[in-house]
Amino acid sequence: MDHDLYQYVDEDRLRSDITQTAEFGSVPVEEGNCRTVLTGTEANKQVREYFVEKLEERGLKVCIDAVGNIAGRWVPDNVDPAARSVATGSHLDSVIDGGMFDGVLGVYAGLEAVRAMQDAGLSPGLPLEVIAFTEEEGGRFSDGVLGSSVAIGDSSVADALATTDKAGVTLGEALEEIGFKGEERLDATAWNSWLELHVEQGTRLEETPVSAGIVTHITGTIRCHIDILGEANHAGTTSMESRTDALTAASELALEIESVTNEVVKTHSKTAVGTVGQFDVEPGSINVIPGSVHLGVDIRDIEYQSMERIISGIQQCLDRLEDERSVETTFSRPYDIEPISMSERCIEALHSAATQAKISTIELHSGAGHDTMHVAKATDAGLIFAPSEGGYSHSAAEWTDWSDCATSTRLLTGALYDLANQ
Amino acid sequence: MDHDLYQYVDEDRLRSDITQTAEFGSVPVEEGNCRTVLTGTEANKQVREYFVEKLEERGLKVCIDAVGNIAGRWVPDNVDPAARSVATGSHLDSVIDGGMFDGVLGVYAGLEAVRAMQDAGLSPGLPLEVIAFTEEEGGRFSDGVLGSSVAIGDSSVADALATTDKAGVTLGEALEEIGFKGEERLDATAWNSWLELHVEQGTRLEETPVSAGIVTHITGTIRCHIDILGEANHAGTTSMESRTDALTAASELALEIESVTNEVVKTHSKTAVGTVGQFDVEPGSINVIPGSVHLGVDIRDIEYQSMERIISGIQQCLDRLEDERSVETTFSRPYDIEPISMSERCIEALHSAATQAKISTIELHSGAGHDTMHVAKATDAGLIFAPSEGGYSHSAAEWTDWSDCATSTRLLTGALYDLANQ
Repeated sequence: MDHDLYQYVDEDRLRSDITQTAEFGSVPVEEGNCRTVLTGTEANKQVREYFVEKLEERGLKVCIDAVGNIAGRWVPDNVDPAARSVATGSHLDSVIDGGMFDGVLGVYAGLEAVRAMQDAGLSPGLPLEVIAFTEEEGGRFSDGVLGSSVAIGDSSVADALATTDKAGVTLGEALEEIGFKGEERLDATAWNSWLELHVEQGTRLEETPVSAGIVTHITGTIRCHIDILGEANHAGTTSMESRTDALTAASELALEIESVTNEVVKTHSKTAVGTVGQFDVEPGSINVIPGSVHLGVDIRDIEYQSMERIISGIQQCLDRLEDERSVETTFSRPYDIEPISMSERCIEALHSAATQAKISTIELHSGAGHDTMHVAKATDAGLIFAPSEGGYSHSAAEWTDWSDCATSTRLLTGALYDLANQ
Repeated sequence: MDHDLYQYVDEDRLRSDITQTAEFGSVPVEEGNCRTVLTGTEANKQVREYFVEKLEERGLKVCIDAVGNIAGRWVPDNVDPAARSVATGSHLDSVIDGGMFDGVLGVYAGLEAVRAMQDAGLSPGLPLEVIAFTEEEGGRFSDGVLGSSVAIGDSSVADALATTDKAGVTLGEALEEIGFKGEERLDATAWNSWLELHVEQGTRLEETPVSAGIVTHITGTIRCHIDILGEANHAGTTSMESRTDALTAASELALEIESVTNEVVKTHSKTAVGTVGQFDVEPGSINVIPGSVHLGVDIRDIEYQSMERIISGIQQCLDRLEDERSVETTFSRPYDIEPISMSERCIEALHSAATQAKISTIELHSGAGHDTMHVAKATDAGLIFAPSEGGYSHSAAEWTDWSDCATSTRLLTGALYDLANQ
C-alpha cells in the first residue's frame, strides 16, 4: 500500500453530517432518534439543501436531474472530465418515523471518501461521483427505489414525475415545490462502477462481530396490493350472520401470509420473509362494520421460487375468502424484482481494501433491495453493510456506533480508490 | 278522535328538509347518498344553521346550550310557558361516509309534528320542544351520544367541552369556531316525556312489512379500546422468527372477537353482536413490520351478561397473545351502557296513535343506542323506528321510502300530541 488514505477518513466530520441531517424532519421520541423525511416535503428540501452545500464546499460539481436525483462530481487533477465515474451514494429520504442512519450513512460516507482522498492529496485515475437518489423508501409516491429505477432507464422520467401521493400531488409538482426538479436524467449506465454503504438492518454483523459486511447477493422483492371488499354497515343493528366484514376477512389473510411464509422458511428457504405492513381499514369508525381493507404485502428471498410459493398461498387464500366470506378481492403485484448478485470486480475491490485497512469482514446477503439492486443492472456494483445495533431499522431504535460508521466508510473509501485506479 | 291532525303531516315538506340537509357535507358516490358531517366542521355548521332557520320560521324559541345542543321550543296559546315540555328530536351529525336519514329524519319529523299541529290549529296542553343533540355518532370527539349524556347530567359540560379530536382540538374550540357554543345546559330531567323517531338500521320492519316499529328495549353497548404493541422493524431484513408483529397479533384478536361473539349468539343470546370497526396500524408503510395496532371494539346485546362473556373472551385472547407472541397489550372500556326499557306511558301513547291513524306496527328491540338510551334515564321515553331498505345504514346505501318517513312521522305526531294532553 503506497498511501495513508484510511487515516484521512474523519469520524467526527461524518458524524456531524449525519447528526445534522437527523435534525431535519425530526420526530420527538422518548428514546432513540426518529425522523420522517418524505420526498418533496419541507424536511426533504432541508436534507437536500444541506447535502448540496456540503458537496459544493469540496468543489464537487452538483447536478440535479429531472426526478430530483442529486449527483456531486469530483474530477481530480489530470483526469479527463469525460471519463466514466466511479459512483457511490445512497438516499436521504426516510420511511414514516424512520431512523437516522438508513440511507444517510451511505450518502455522507461517499462524500467523506472524496474528502479523505482530497485531504490525503491523492488523485484517483477516474472521476468520483456522490449520489443521493430520490424516493428510495417509497414512503410517499411509489413502492420505492424510484430515483435509481429512472437512472438505469427502467422507469421513464415522465412516468416517475406523474406518480401521485394519496392526496393526488404528483412527484413533479412536489419536486418543483421544493426547488429540486432539475433537468435531464442521471445515467447509471455511464458509470465505471458503483459502491453503496448501508446499515445492515439485521444482526449478522453484530453477532459475528465485525464492523463491516461485504454483500454477495441481494434478495428479490415482490410487493402486492390487495383489496378486500365487504359491506360497510351499522355495528349495532346488523346481526352476526348477515354481515360481510372486510376486516375479519383481511385478518385471516394477514395470518395466512405469516403462516405460509413460516412454512416456506421451514421447508424451502431459510431467508424468506413475508410482511403485511400496510393495512388500511375503511371507514374506520368504531360503530361501523368495515367495508374495505387495503393491504400492502412485501415478500423477499434470495430464491425467486420460494417467493412464488408465498404468492401462490396468498392467491389460494383470496379464493377461499371469496367462497367462505362472500367478500370481493383484487390482487396486483406491480413491483417484482428478482434476486441479484454483486459484481466480482467490486467484491474483490472490497476484500482488497479490507486487507489493506486491516478491517475484519464477513460475506452475507442483503434482505433489503436498496438502490444498488437497480444499479447492479447498469454497471458493476457492490454493497457494504455497517452493523445495526439489535438489528433495528425503520424505527427510532436504529443505531450504528460511530466507530463502525467510520470503519465501514474506510472500507468504502479504499475500494472506491481501488476501482478508480484499475 | 276529535281532530284530523294526521293529514297535516306534509311528506313533501319533510322530504325537502331532509334532502336539503343531505347537501351539506355531501360525499360524491356512484350510487346512493353519502355525507360526512362531523361535529364542529363547516358541514356541521351548515346543517345547524339550516335547522335554526327552520325552527324560527315556525316561531319556535331557539336555545343553544354550552355543548351545542339545539332546542326549539313551541309554547302553544294558553299554555303556561313554565310547564314541562314534551320533547322530541334526534341528531344532525353523521359518521364518516354516513347516510342521509340517520338522525336527520328524527329531527325534522319532530319539527314536522309541530308544524302539523300548528297547521291543524291544534293547541296541545304542554309546550313542545324539538331537539338536535351534539355528537351522537362520536365520529370526531367521543364514543358518541355526547350531547344527550350532558343533557341528563351524566357528563359535565366542562368534561364534554374538553374532549379532543385526533388533532388535539377540543369540542369547545370546534363549537366556538362554528358559532354554536351557547350557554347553560339543556336539562332533559325537566321534560314531561320524550319520543325519538329514527331509522331502524336493520331489516325487521321491511321483512314484516310495516311502516313503523315501536321499540320496547334498547341494547346495552360496551366499547373497548385495545392497543397491541409489537416492534416496528424492517420488513426485508428481519427474519420471520425474530419479529414481533403487532398486526398479525391484532388479526388473531379480530378473528377471536368474531368467533366468541358467534359462539354467544349460538348458545346464549341471538341478539349479541361484536365488531372491530377501528383498526389503526402504525407506522403503516409497506416495508415496515407494524409496531402497533389500535383497535376500537363495539359490543351490544339486550342481555348484559352475554356482553360480559364476549369481553371475557377478549381478555383471555389478550393474555394468550402476550404469552405466545410477546406483544404488550392494553385494554380499556370507557363506554359501558346497560340495556334499558322504554317507558310504558310512551309505548301506550304510540300504540294509541297507531290505532287512531290506522298505522300497522310491530314491537321490536333496538340494536343501536341512540340519544333515547340516555334520555330514558331522565324522563319517560319512547322510540319509533322507520324501515331501512335492505337494513343498510352508516353508508351511502341507507334509504327509507318517503312514504315510510311520512307514516312514521304521523305516528310520532299523534303520540306527541297525546302525551302533551294527558
